[in-house]
Amino acid sequence: MGNCAQGCKDYWCRPKNTNVRLSLPAVCFVWQIAMIILFGVFIRYDEESDTHWVEFRREHNISSDIENDFYFRYPSFQDVHVMIFVGFGFLMTFLKRYSFGGVGFNFLIASFGIQWALLMQGWFHSLDPNTGKITIGVESLINADFCVAGCLIAYGACLGKVSPVQLMVLTLFGVTLFAVEEYIILDLIHAKDAGGSMVIHTFGGYYGLAISWVLYRPNLHQSKRLNGSVYHSDVFAMIGTLFLWMFWPSFNSAITDHGDGQHRAAINTYLGLASTVLTTYAISSLSAKRGKLDMVHIQNATLAGGVAMGTAAEFMIQPYGSLIVGFCCGILSTLGYLVLSPFMEKTLKIQDTCGVHNLHAMPGVIGGVVGAITAAAATEDVYGHEGLVNTFDFEGSFVNRTVGTQGGHQAAGLCVAIVFGIGGGAIVGAILRLPIWGDPADDNCYDDEVYWELPEDEESIPPILEYNNHMVTKNPDMSESNFSVEQS
Amino acid sequence: MGNCAQGCKDYWCRPKNTNVRLSLPAVCFVWQIAMIILFGVFIRYDEESDTHWVEFRREHNISSDIENDFYFRYPSFQDVHVMIFVGFGFLMTFLKRYSFGGVGFNFLIASFGIQWALLMQGWFHSLDPNTGKITIGVESLINADFCVAGCLIAYGACLGKVSPVQLMVLTLFGVTLFAVEEYIILDLIHAKDAGGSMVIHTFGGYYGLAISWVLYRPNLHQSKRLNGSVYHSDVFAMIGTLFLWMFWPSFNSAITDHGDGQHRAAINTYLGLASTVLTTYAISSLSAKRGKLDMVHIQNATLAGGVAMGTAAEFMIQPYGSLIVGFCCGILSTLGYLVLSPFMEKTLKIQDTCGVHNLHAMPGVIGGVVGAITAAAATEDVYGHEGLVNTFDFEGSFVNRTVGTQGGHQAAGLCVAIVFGIGGGAIVGAILRLPIWGDPADDNCYDDEVYWELPEDEESIPPILEYNNHMVTKNPDMSESNFSVEQS
Amino acid sequence: MGNCAQGCKDYWCRPKNTNVRLSLPAVCFVWQIAMIILFGVFIRYDEESDTHWVEFRREHNISSDIENDFYFRYPSFQDVHVMIFVGFGFLMTFLKRYSFGGVGFNFLIASFGIQWALLMQGWFHSLDPNTGKITIGVESLINADFCVAGCLIAYGACLGKVSPVQLMVLTLFGVTLFAVEEYIILDLIHAKDAGGSMVIHTFGGYYGLAISWVLYRPNLHQSKRLNGSVYHSDVFAMIGTLFLWMFWPSFNSAITDHGDGQHRAAINTYLGLASTVLTTYAISSLSAKRGKLDMVHIQNATLAGGVAMGTAAEFMIQPYGSLIVGFCCGILSTLGYLVLSPFMEKTLKIQDTCGVHNLHAMPGVIGGVVGAITAAAATEDVYGHEGLVNTFDFEGSFVNRTVGTQGGHQAAGLCVAIVFGIGGGAIVGAILRLPIWGDPADDNCYDDEVYWELPEDEESIPPILEYNNHMVTKNPDMSESNFSVEQS
Repeated sequence: MGNCAQGCKDYWCRPKNTNVRLSLPAVCFVWQIAMIILFGVFIRYDEESDTHWVEFRREHNISSDIENDFYFRYPSFQDVHVMIFVGFGFLMTFLKRYSFGGVGFNFLIASFGIQWALLMQGWFHSLDPNTGKITIGVESLINADFCVAGCLIAYGACLGKVSPVQLMVLTLFGVTLFAVEEYIILDLIHAKDAGGSMVIHTFGGYYGLAISWVLYRPNLHQSKRLNGSVYHSDVFAMIGTLFLWMFWPSFNSAITDHGDGQHRAAINTYLGLASTVLTTYAISSLSAKRGKLDMVHIQNATLAGGVAMGTAAEFMIQPYGSLIVGFCCGILSTLGYLVLSPFMEKTLKIQDTCGVHNLHAMPGVIGGVVGAITAAAATEDVYGHEGLVNTFDFEGSFVNRTVGTQGGHQAAGLCVAIVFGIGGGAIVGAILRLPIWGDPADDNCYDDEVYWELPEDEESIPPILEYNNHMVTKNPDMSESNFSVEQS
Repeated sequence: MGNCAQGCKDYWCRPKNTNVRLSLPAVCFVWQIAMIILFGVFIRYDEESDTHWVEFRREHNISSDIENDFYFRYPSFQDVHVMIFVGFGFLMTFLKRYSFGGVGFNFLIASFGIQWALLMQGWFHSLDPNTGKITIGVESLINADFCVAGCLIAYGACLGKVSPVQLMVLTLFGVTLFAVEEYIILDLIHAKDAGGSMVIHTFGGYYGLAISWVLYRPNLHQSKRLNGSVYHSDVFAMIGTLFLWMFWPSFNSAITDHGDGQHRAAINTYLGLASTVLTTYAISSLSAKRGKLDMVHIQNATLAGGVAMGTAAEFMIQPYGSLIVGFCCGILSTLGYLVLSPFMEKTLKIQDTCGVHNLHAMPGVIGGVVGAITAAAATEDVYGHEGLVNTFDFEGSFVNRTVGTQGGHQAAGLCVAIVFGIGGGAIVGAILRLPIWGDPADDNCYDDEVYWELPEDEESIPPILEYNNHMVTKNPDMSESNFSVEQS
Repeated sequence: MGNCAQGCKDYWCRPKNTNVRLSLPAVCFVWQIAMIILFGVFIRYDEESDTHWVEFRREHNISSDIENDFYFRYPSFQDVHVMIFVGFGFLMTFLKRYSFGGVGFNFLIASFGIQWALLMQGWFHSLDPNTGKITIGVESLINADFCVAGCLIAYGACLGKVSPVQLMVLTLFGVTLFAVEEYIILDLIHAKDAGGSMVIHTFGGYYGLAISWVLYRPNLHQSKRLNGSVYHSDVFAMIGTLFLWMFWPSFNSAITDHGDGQHRAAINTYLGLASTVLTTYAISSLSAKRGKLDMVHIQNATLAGGVAMGTAAEFMIQPYGSLIVGFCCGILSTLGYLVLSPFMEKTLKIQDTCGVHNLHAMPGVIGGVVGAITAAAATEDVYGHEGLVNTFDFEGSFVNRTVGTQGGHQAAGLCVAIVFGIGGGAIVGAILRLPIWGDPADDNCYDDEVYWELPEDEESIPPILEYNNHMVTKNPDMSESNFSVEQS
């Protein structure tokens, strides 16, 4: 027993081995081959992307090719696609020496996640019981991108502290949990959540926070020197911020109803985001000596309004309603960075690199609540009878649901998202604690050196010199380094 | 009297206080709350973004949701949105130490400006006299982005020399002036200006130049060391340049007529811009020792063709006509940077940081003139009868207008834009001279240090050391900074 | 005779003169003026972008403006446009001191190329024999962008080793060859190649490689210090990579059939690319000590799947088929960078700066082969009768072609692309060897200094100091440069 305990302790406490030369290729190859097999068995084109579309058009009296769903959704899809790969990717380049990992691992796990999401979401939402096939079209691609967004949010909480293999595992389970949670919220509970305040942001945020909590690193301060930005890495991160900010109206409107649904969702999100920016700048300036703005707030809190408009974007929340939501979110999210993040790190032992609690989890919850209230307050006066039915899909088995009930179900959906996020994250976090995934040691975090071949770089952080009365040049190749010191 | 004069002098000449900790949050909060109230009173969804769309469709015999204006304009809207936030924002990151201010303040004032623009343009263009409401849709969003573009152009002339509070004031008045000027030019004079050569670029350019003239800083040379780029800041600026260049066809076609109008405007702008690039490179190379190209020209003058196509883009100017316009603009704009900018700074006392005169004001005037000539030269032969009526909107009270008259009215519109720009800029400049806005001192311009918390940065400009016979290290933490080592 | 030989030798071996002050402006001006004249003679708006569209609509019973081709293709066009200017441009910023040249010369030659392409492609594809005019619309703009892509690929092979004048010549001949080759493959052979695996990538890749082979520089190792990246230049390159990756579905679907054609091409490309990413990461990690990833692979090989889906994207290759193609391409392309590139440089004397063989030529050939096989394997069972006819355009004089024959013709098309690429590249390379184009010497490659005014830069590679017992500061203005201080 003592031996066993000792053995266990040795096993868990042995020095970290960050060599992923076998594990990363193995995971990539095996899972990609699995994808190919599963796609071969299950996935086919839907009627709008199949060559039989010409017959389908004739049978359904569709007058023009322009009514193919492709033309309703493809521009929004591309905007969402940019948000996933450039938006999330570049937002995570802000660390001075983790830009490769930020944008590069985001690229890897998103590419894997969208494939797995097509399968998982397909099984739950569009498996044809007769043929046993899932058919996909442009809306499936958008939903796959959405699903992956949840995992990328979770990555934000763990940025710099996990290995790419861990991220692949995080994504595998994250997508799986997402599909189940989404099925419960959207199909069983029949809550509306077009832009995913609950389904994507609340879930993703808490999923990441719970993982980060389980993976708590008591000696992370040893990597403190790299847990910060440099001037140009902050500018790179603004690329991510702006592409997220600009395309968020597309995100929230991408899968809403054709016509007024998409139109209204875009307007509401546009307004909510504009309002958030002003209050973010205000609180950021108010909180600093001499009113100086902090790039962390500008890069992140300005987006909270888009998160919080996710559920209510397609409702008749009215333009001023969107402004109010954005107004509050800018304040709360910036205060989150100022007050909550340090508190969570110290007291709750949650190390949240990108502050996803302030940008996703909390605004997501706000969005869920706003959605519930707005739904409960809906009236036929404002929506019109048909409008009310269309907006809330009071059809089929939900034909008798009232707006009050709908509001309650929206709130129930929010709870499901939180439970799945925290519960799922705790379990996945435990799996990720196994000492087999190649994660870095506490004094080795936030460093691209661990997983990337880095170029010789004149911008690299210069080494601490120990000099004496002899000529010292740390780097013998002077043409590539910043300095030269000589003494006679 | 003597005391009073002395008092005034003291008041005006006291050392600059750049602390915006109270003023910036106050402005943001108060104005954002005002927006919420005004939106609550005035702004509602239009019939294409309201849930009653389904009834509207039925009543108006609209066969499909795809004919909702959203699908005609949303892709262009998103391109314009990218131009406003990434295009203008990153174009202004070229300074070595003002990238945060360039992209960050652009973000702030554009977010405020679009809200105020929705109200101002709404009051002038779409206030329903019966309900007292303004209804908005995707075209309103595009117009709001357009309106803000004028203020962002003006920011370009003042880049690095003003405080964020001044920029908010500049935007408040800029949007107000814009809405009035636009109403006069487009509605009263009934000039056509789809891409805003006159309304946006001429106005915005002269507005900024006039402000810069009033705010002339005689000792600006004290900040000379920071008034320039570094290698990577120039590459960042190319992001702005390219997104502006690529999406300019969307800018000029965003609010033109459905169908051939949008189609033709995109083609003309695409060609005009392509032509500009070649002549810009030619003049830039011709003007330098050994033919070396100058990034300032490449970043800016290549865009002049898009500006100059703003008015005539929807006319039948023919593809070769667009090429000719672009050809001339590339030459003139580059010569502007080489000849006019130094002249304006020395003789006219106008300090134009980004050279908006060469990129916006002058090409805008060219665009206005080209528009007037092209309109006056239009014939039924080329346009067809219906085409002529559609293109120039010879309907309602303008049914009897001839193309010759239209040409004259186009020219009149151009004059209005210039007058509003110079006059408005002079007045607003005077307001901005009040010593209450927290602008930096002459030796403190072009520096993010003033309004931003900057990261410790290995790329920062190293301090000038005063050394003696002892070892000095300016920054004790060598691991994070450039350093100097000395030995006695 | 001896004198002549000596004279020739002197002529060819004289020191390189990189002054392009006369040649670059001359080429730009003359060719741009030629464009204006040729556009004036030949190019007009087509019926969908002409003001007569309103009459055309009535005559052809087109029910709504939304059926104007503009609305089918403009969003894809803008995505392609971004790929050409930001995608290709920023992908080539990866070198530490050639970012200006990468993005800047890309901008120049693409702007020239699209004009020349409109003419060349117009003469071959849409010259109206009655009027002698070429009419253009949004599809022409996309095709012009496509055509230019071939030349930009060729630029990638020569990056850093050629002058802008040479690039203009490369583009002039490249576009010309492209138009002929495209006409033979698409019109005469009637092969399908929507995304241009053969027409664009195979041709462009071999064109560039052949040029690079002819321009072989035996002493290029003298510029070795600059043939590499720095940290931030690699992040800039990721902007290019991601925009190419994200928008590739638009590239491959931009000119496919309305409706299911565009829809299916987008889905297939999306899947192929996702699969490529995983195998690229796998091989990159597998090949390195400690499993470290290499940015060169991530930036380039991840795109190979998009190239290889170019031909088959609109076929019924099925989702799993796309995954398989991407799977193989990620492996082969990464292995290309690891194995083939060094081999080609050493043995074949081909210096391929960006590795276009691995990213374009080889995946392009794979794409052509996949297309041939998929076409030959097509059945009415899968496609439906109408679907088969629509997909392969078995109409007019090709009404009796079978899928087997089509497969053979696809393969023939691939051969034509290779022959044109290698043959054309060899000839153009010979022209570019003339010592009149201002290309840099072997020890002066990969350096923006040659053709650009560079800013004083704290990031610049510091000069090698020659110091003695006195205090030396290479740059007297310490506030602007890195420096070294010594004292005796």
